[in-house]
Amino acid sequence: MANERRGTVTETPRKVRKREPEVLDTAARVFHERGYADATIQDVADALGMLKGSLYYYIDSKEDLLFRLLEQVHDEVDEILTKVMDHEGSPIEVIALYARLLAGYHLSNLVKITVYYHDVDQLSDQRRRLIYSRRRVHEEYVTGLIEAAQRDGTADPSQPARLLVSCVFGVLVWVYRWYRPRGQFRPEAVVDACVAFVLSGLRGDLAALDSGGVTPP
Amino acid sequence: MANERRGTVTETPRKVRKREPEVLDTAARVFHERGYADATIQDVADALGMLKGSLYYYIDSKEDLLFRLLEQVHDEVDEILTKVMDHEGSPIEVIALYARLLAGYHLSNLVKITVYYHDVDQLSDQRRRLIYSRRRVHEEYVTGLIEAAQRDGTADPSQPARLLVSCVFGVLVWVYRWYRPRGQFRPEAVVDACVAFVLSGLRGDLAALDSGGVTPP
Repeated sequence: MANERRGTVTETPRKVRKREPEVLDTAARVFHERGYADATIQDVADALGMLKGSLYYYIDSKEDLLFRLLEQVHDEVDEILTKVMDHEGSPIEVIALYARLLAGYHLSNLVKITVYYHDVDQLSDQRRRLIYSRRRVHEEYVTGLIEAAQRDGTADPSQPARLLVSCVFGVLVWVYRWYRPRGQFRPEAVVDACVAFVLSGLRGDLAALDSGGVTPP
Repeated sequence: MANERRGTVTETPRKVRKREPEVLDTAARVFHERGYADATIQDVADALGMLKGSLYYYIDSKEDLLFRLLEQVHDEVDEILTKVMDHEGSPIEVIALYARLLAGYHLSNLVKITVYYHDVDQLSDQRRRLIYSRRRVHEEYVTGLIEAAQRDGTADPSQPARLLVSCVFGVLVWVYRWYRPRGQFRPEAVVDACVAFVLSGLRGDLAALDSGGVTPP
């Protein structure tokens, strides 16, 4: 035990920084299990088998850890955005790809995404605004795609794109609240259902409903 | 001030109980503003202009307040459920009514619903299970409607009803995270968009999409 402690206390800022992915994963797990409000830096250090002092080389406060974690989420979803922007296809096809990748990301990162949505408002004003502004980039991009799909006749033009985009994110984000990894459904089935629902939701065409059923293909 | 205090300290349990709606509304506001973890019974009493002792006639702990608040939410959404169950119509029409009433309820009760979803997991195990079991009644009911709609050809039979129902709740619940009462959209417009999205989402019919556009009515 004494040896272990001596081992960890000598970790340099550089060494700790190299462990960043592990530090953030562990912080996410600790915040998720204990609740961000109740969790301490000591809890995170203990879970890492690291001395608190070593962690303080790297961050100044618990809020720093939360902020880095949420920045990491945005770094990762921004990669999705870049990939989607590079995709050649009609607006609705690009939306389909974005929905597929984002739903998949949420399902593969349930702990981190739960902390993201549960605790983003625990950040200081400036940092919260920064995270929100990064989120807005996604909303604006998808809103633009919906508007383009409305113009080319593949999305319902009767609803404002800004409302439709919130419905889309509702479907894609809400998975973090209800999906159970050891439950009945595999992630792929959930992604398929979310993408199908989003595309049909955007497509609209309630006329068919009023006339009493699904229009045959 | 001394007089005011004397006035409130004499409130009997019955009098406090009569103020239940006000107590719960205020608790919701205080939990929302300060965060449930940081809020105290004293904060709620102060916001009510009531002595803490009077509030203790009525509840034993802060968790009691949270639990009553979440029970109240369920009493109210159960009224919606009862109304919807009494509605005569096809399964998809009943879903449409449920979606309309639930989205409207969420939009009219943003503070309470935010506390509900943010803090339900702060309840003790037994109480949390009770709240979750009440929520499950809604999920089961809407799942049954979706299955019936799949059978009568008004909902997409290619996706499991249990996944579709989660997409539906995603759209209807998520409004509490993004809707801003002083923003661009009136609640009625939001309800319309959510209901339209949910109905089209359930309806599916991706064949039309593959063939390149919205099928004319």
